[in-house]
Amino acid sequence: MGTHDTIRAVIWQHDGLRLLDQRVLPGREVYLEYDDASAVAQAITDMVVRGAPAIGCTAAYAVVIAAREAYARHGTDWKLNIQSDIKTLADSRPTAVNLFWALKRMQSLIEGIEGDPVEPLLAEARRIQDEDIAANHAMGELGASLMEQVGAVITHCNTGSLATGGYGTALGVIRSAYDKQLITEVFADETRPWLQGSRLTAWELVKDGIPVKLLADGAAAHRMKQGGVTWAIVGSDRITADGSAANKIGTYSLAVNARFHGVKFMVVAPTSTVDMSITDGSQIPIESRDPDELFSIQGKRIAADGAGAWNPVFDVTPPELIDAIVTEKGIVRNPTPEKMQAMMQR
Amino acid sequence: MGTHDTIRAVIWQHDGLRLLDQRVLPGREVYLEYDDASAVAQAITDMVVRGAPAIGCTAAYAVVIAAREAYARHGTDWKLNIQSDIKTLADSRPTAVNLFWALKRMQSLIEGIEGDPVEPLLAEARRIQDEDIAANHAMGELGASLMEQVGAVITHCNTGSLATGGYGTALGVIRSAYDKQLITEVFADETRPWLQGSRLTAWELVKDGIPVKLLADGAAAHRMKQGGVTWAIVGSDRITADGSAANKIGTYSLAVNARFHGVKFMVVAPTSTVDMSITDGSQIPIESRDPDELFSIQGKRIAADGAGAWNPVFDVTPPELIDAIVTEKGIVRNPTPEKMQAMMQR
Repeated sequence: MGTHDTIRAVIWQHDGLRLLDQRVLPGREVYLEYDDASAVAQAITDMVVRGAPAIGCTAAYAVVIAAREAYARHGTDWKLNIQSDIKTLADSRPTAVNLFWALKRMQSLIEGIEGDPVEPLLAEARRIQDEDIAANHAMGELGASLMEQVGAVITHCNTGSLATGGYGTALGVIRSAYDKQLITEVFADETRPWLQGSRLTAWELVKDGIPVKLLADGAAAHRMKQGGVTWAIVGSDRITADGSAANKIGTYSLAVNARFHGVKFMVVAPTSTVDMSITDGSQIPIESRDPDELFSIQGKRIAADGAGAWNPVFDVTPPELIDAIVTEKGIVRNPTPEKMQAMMQR
Repeated sequence: MGTHDTIRAVIWQHDGLRLLDQRVLPGREVYLEYDDASAVAQAITDMVVRGAPAIGCTAAYAVVIAAREAYARHGTDWKLNIQSDIKTLADSRPTAVNLFWALKRMQSLIEGIEGDPVEPLLAEARRIQDEDIAANHAMGELGASLMEQVGAVITHCNTGSLATGGYGTALGVIRSAYDKQLITEVFADETRPWLQGSRLTAWELVKDGIPVKLLADGAAAHRMKQGGVTWAIVGSDRITADGSAANKIGTYSLAVNARFHGVKFMVVAPTSTVDMSITDGSQIPIESRDPDELFSIQGKRIAADGAGAWNPVFDVTPPELIDAIVTEKGIVRNPTPEKMQAMMQR
C-alpha cells in the first residue's frame, strides 16, 4: 500500500472475516468479526460493508465460512448444505452485480473440490480480493491517463478502499491522478441519504492526505458552473451490455449536470461489475431502502411526521451521458454495445 | 385562511413581533418574541425566520420597533437615531432583495412622518405583510392557470407560509393548484444543508393536508425520469432584470434536470423580489454560510474531521432554463429583459 492507500475494510485474519463497520465511521473505527455466513449476509443488508466490489469480496469470504461450517457438520455432504447460505448471501442486496458474480465464481470452484474445502475456497476468495485490488490499480493508471488537464474533480458516494477490496475504483483513479499531480482538489458530494461522501470519502481522503471539500449534492451543478472542474468520476454497482451504469442515487443528476457544463464524466468499475446478460439500464433491479434513511440522521429525527418518502438508493446513467467507462481491461469511450462487447472479450 | 392555509410565521401581536422559530421545527413549535431591532437582525442572520418575503416583512416590523425605541428615547431626533438599526437589519443577510426593498419602503415613509411614528410605520409594515399575502394568492391563481395537466409536482426548499407573509410563493401555487385538483402529490427535495424541505415544507404540507413525499436532492433527476411530474415549482430570493433567479442551493441543478427531462420549470416570487437594478444573475451576491451546516446535523457531527467544505447557500438559474416567472403582476414566459421590463411596468 502506498502513501495514499492505507485502508482496508474487508480483511481475512485469524481464520475469520473482519469488516470495518461503515455505519459508525467516521466517528468510530470498529472492526466486527464474523464466523457465520448468515451474519455476513445481514452485515451486507445493514451496510456494515457496502460498495459493489467490497460486497463481492465479502460474499466470497462468507462462502469460505459457510463451507467450513458445513464440512465440519456434514462432511462430504457439505456442498448441498451450503446452498441455503449462498442463497441468503445472494438475497442480501439486489443492485450490485459483483455479489452474484463472486458467489458464482465460488460456486463454480465448489463443484470440483474433493476433501476439506477451506483451503481451496479461501485461496479463491483471497484471489478475488487480490485481483480486485490489482484491477483498481490498473484502472487508476488508465483513468489517470484520460486526464489531460490539471484541475479539480468531483465525485459521488464512496468508491475507495472502503467500497472495494482496496484502493478503490473512482477513488483509485483519484488516488493515481493525485499522485501524478493531475488533481488539485477533490469535491465530494455528501451523498444523501447515507452520507457516504461526508462520512466515508472525506475520511479516506483526509486519512490519505488528499485535499477534499464536501458539498451538498444539489451544489454540484453550481460548482461546475464556476469552472475548474475537469472530470466527474464515479463508480458503479452494475454496468449493462449497452454501457448503462447503475450507481448511488444522485449519480444520474451529476451526469446530466456534467454534460450541461462540459465536464467529462467517467465511470470506473472492474469487469466483475459488468453484467452482459442485461441489455440496458431499465432492467437493473433498483433497491429502495427504509424511508427512515430520509427521516432521521444518526438516530435523530429531522423530518416532519406524516410525510411520505421516495427512497430508491440507486439510479441509472445512460451511455449517452458517459464519456468513458474504465475497467481493468481498458477504456471504453462513448460506450456502445459493440464497444462493451469488444472490451469484455479482451 | 383556507383549509390548506393555516400557518403564519411572522405575527405582530401585543405591540411586539413574534417569529415562529424555524430552527427547531418540526420537532417544536416555538414562537419567539422580539422588542429590539438588533435582536431581530440577529434572528434573520440565525434563520429563526427565513425565506425572502418573510425576511422583508420581519424587517419592516423591526423598523417599527426601532422607531418606537428611538422616539421614546430621543423624541424628534428619532429619525437620525434609527439609522444604525436599519443598517444592522440590512446587513443581516445578503442575497434576498426583499429585505432591502422592505427597508427602503419603510425608510421612504419615515421622511414624511411628524410626531409619534409608531402608528404610521406599523400600518405600513402591516400593509407590506398583507400585500405579500394578497400577492401570494394572486400568484397562486396565476401559477395554477399554467398547469394544463394533472400530475405530480416537485419543489425545492420552503416557499410556503413559513417563508412569506403567509400562503407562500411556489407553495402558494401548489396550494391553489391542489385546491383545483391539478396536483396529485408533491415531491419535496429535502434541501440540504438546512433541510428546509424535510423540516419545513413537509411540516406545512402535512399540516394543511396536502400529500407530500420527501426525496434526496440528488434523486430529483431519477424521479423526473420516471415520468408523471408536470412542473418543478420554486421560489426566488432575487430575480434580476434579465429574468435570472437566485434561489436556495440546488435549484439550479433542479432546473438543468427539469429541462433535460422535459419538465416545465416555474419561478414564483412577488415583485418585491425583483431587482431591476441588476442586469444579470452574475451580479447577485451569493451568501456562503458556516461549513458546519455540512459537517453537522442538529448538533451531531456527521462528517470526517479534516475535510473542507464548499457551502454557498444560493445558486442562480438563468432565464434560458425558466419556462415561466410568476409575480402578482402577471406571468412572464421564457423571460427576456424586455418581457421583465413590461411586466414590472404593469
